[in-house]
Amino acid sequence: MRNFQIKPVDGKLRPAIQDKIDNLNKPKGSLGELEALAMQLCLIQQDLTPTLAHPCHLLLGGDHGIEREGVSVSPLEVTWQQMINFSKGGGGVNMFCRQHGFALRVVDVGVDYDLSAVPGILDRKIAWGTKNFLYEPAMDEKQFDQAVETGAALVDDCASEGCRVVCIGEMGIANTSPSSLWMSLFCDIPLPDCIGAGAGLDTPGIRHKKEVLARALEQFHTLYPAPGTEDVIRYFGGLEMVAAIGAMLRAAERRIAILVDGFIMTACALAACRLYPASRDYMIFGHCGDESGHKKMLDALQARPLLSLGLRLGEGTGALCAFPIVDSAVRMINEMNNFQHANITKYF
Amino acid sequence: MRNFQIKPVDGKLRPAIQDKIDNLNKPKGSLGELEALAMQLCLIQQDLTPTLAHPCHLLLGGDHGIEREGVSVSPLEVTWQQMINFSKGGGGVNMFCRQHGFALRVVDVGVDYDLSAVPGILDRKIAWGTKNFLYEPAMDEKQFDQAVETGAALVDDCASEGCRVVCIGEMGIANTSPSSLWMSLFCDIPLPDCIGAGAGLDTPGIRHKKEVLARALEQFHTLYPAPGTEDVIRYFGGLEMVAAIGAMLRAAERRIAILVDGFIMTACALAACRLYPASRDYMIFGHCGDESGHKKMLDALQARPLLSLGLRLGEGTGALCAFPIVDSAVRMINEMNNFQHANITKYF
Repeated sequence: MRNFQIKPVDGKLRPAIQDKIDNLNKPKGSLGELEALAMQLCLIQQDLTPTLAHPCHLLLGGDHGIEREGVSVSPLEVTWQQMINFSKGGGGVNMFCRQHGFALRVVDVGVDYDLSAVPGILDRKIAWGTKNFLYEPAMDEKQFDQAVETGAALVDDCASEGCRVVCIGEMGIANTSPSSLWMSLFCDIPLPDCIGAGAGLDTPGIRHKKEVLARALEQFHTLYPAPGTEDVIRYFGGLEMVAAIGAMLRAAERRIAILVDGFIMTACALAACRLYPASRDYMIFGHCGDESGHKKMLDALQARPLLSLGLRLGEGTGALCAFPIVDSAVRMINEMNNFQHANITKYF
Repeated sequence: MRNFQIKPVDGKLRPAIQDKIDNLNKPKGSLGELEALAMQLCLIQQDLTPTLAHPCHLLLGGDHGIEREGVSVSPLEVTWQQMINFSKGGGGVNMFCRQHGFALRVVDVGVDYDLSAVPGILDRKIAWGTKNFLYEPAMDEKQFDQAVETGAALVDDCASEGCRVVCIGEMGIANTSPSSLWMSLFCDIPLPDCIGAGAGLDTPGIRHKKEVLARALEQFHTLYPAPGTEDVIRYFGGLEMVAAIGAMLRAAERRIAILVDGFIMTACALAACRLYPASRDYMIFGHCGDESGHKKMLDALQARPLLSLGLRLGEGTGALCAFPIVDSAVRMINEMNNFQHANITKYF
């Protein structure tokens, strides 16, 4: 895997930014999280008038060998069917991209279906789905590197258009399973506490999922008694998830703000932070879902998500729904009058 | 006070709406609160393709006699200074109205300052501030009726432009005080549990506020041993708050969705619901702030607010920040493909 040059944000501007925020015509601190967001964006961009120019959304699709073990309520074919649906503008992700002015790229990174002739889907296929990690690593090292590079290159494309905020979503039936395993291993939380209903499993379904994933974890521990971060990611990860990590790391390297979605994308953010802790500075967390353990994973990242609306669709929809709040924060610091200019008695 | 013809929403369409939502191409229930919002809007408008046409924001300003008791950190003059600031486009409310396409009306209902010559401020002044309710009722019955009518007429103006969603904000130094008293009396919660820091009181300031309001409440109980709902509203209320109640009731009567802001507007919503319980069906709660008791007041209204971002600016900013989520819900039910049209296997 390539080396990323990711630096923590430079805090030197912090007092100047705080001073600007405190002089806007409002009681100190009264715009709560918007003030914290404005601070973060100013620090990321090293600028007292930040911009969210050209927001881009990467919708990354990939299939998972583990799906064959019956760990998901949805059949495998839904991945490619939805990818086509997204390419035609009919999915959840499309609505929210239109609503918030995001340029959407639908990218086949590892879907187990031939989408190469579908207009509107970028063909970056690395494999026809991952291997079944109940028996073997989901991908080999070459595929891992290729997935990271694919994600990074997509962010470069966005950046060349002037993008200053990137959002990443996924489509991949069964991808809560690798997310749960990453969470358990990266946060040192017992695996059962990391496993939930996914898109809608019932109680016996969840029990079965827990059994399958426990067996996979046992096998992994046998093969890797002292695993490194990359081993964990590669053994269980989806190609779309590893591409998301590459995209996040490249965005952090280029000082582009990263809008993080729900359970699966939080697992990718967690993995990115385990590889490069400084990438955390560039992440804004959009949504806390109900999926078992999401809250705990956010806590491990010291993240306060902007929304909590019970969304569990994936595709990046939770992050997209949170975008106007980020936009509000930018408008606050760029557009709101200060006390002096507004001729208002500064009350404290 | 006039009689409003407010009917609960007709539930007959519920199964048809639910069927439409469940056939959108997503796992059932996976858009969480957006689905609940879509249901509510469809029921309000009695239409399977609801609209948020011509959103309007009413910014109502008024002063409070109780301010003279030192219950607020901000001086009285901030009310009129901010009203002028809003009229020029420099306030928090202005940014968010611009962001979300709201038509803003800045209305002087009871500011203790001559704003009649300021362009961009509607002159609906009923009095130069309320009386000090530590000693006497904040307003008389005639003023109460006039405030209700003023709010109702403002909504009629919006409706004549085709408005289907109205948001209401306030500017009135010291107006957390009447809100706390309404909350205590309407929810039967001990007064101290209903009192917080307002725009930023320190601990001695909060203690003083509690003492003043406790004395006012004692006096009220002496004068009104068995008070009616209108007595409670009139005795403590601000003119901007009573106008907000009138606006909410008229909106409910006209089946216009009401976007409710933070602590003060929730107190107005509570009062409106005590007068006309059916008005609750038309209310969408935007934001839960940190002000002591706001959460309890929302619970009393069985309201799940969309956001919780630590905002405490007032002006309707919390509700405005939540608007894009309501918009997302409408886009979901109006724009998202269903399974059949998208050629996707319906997974459950």
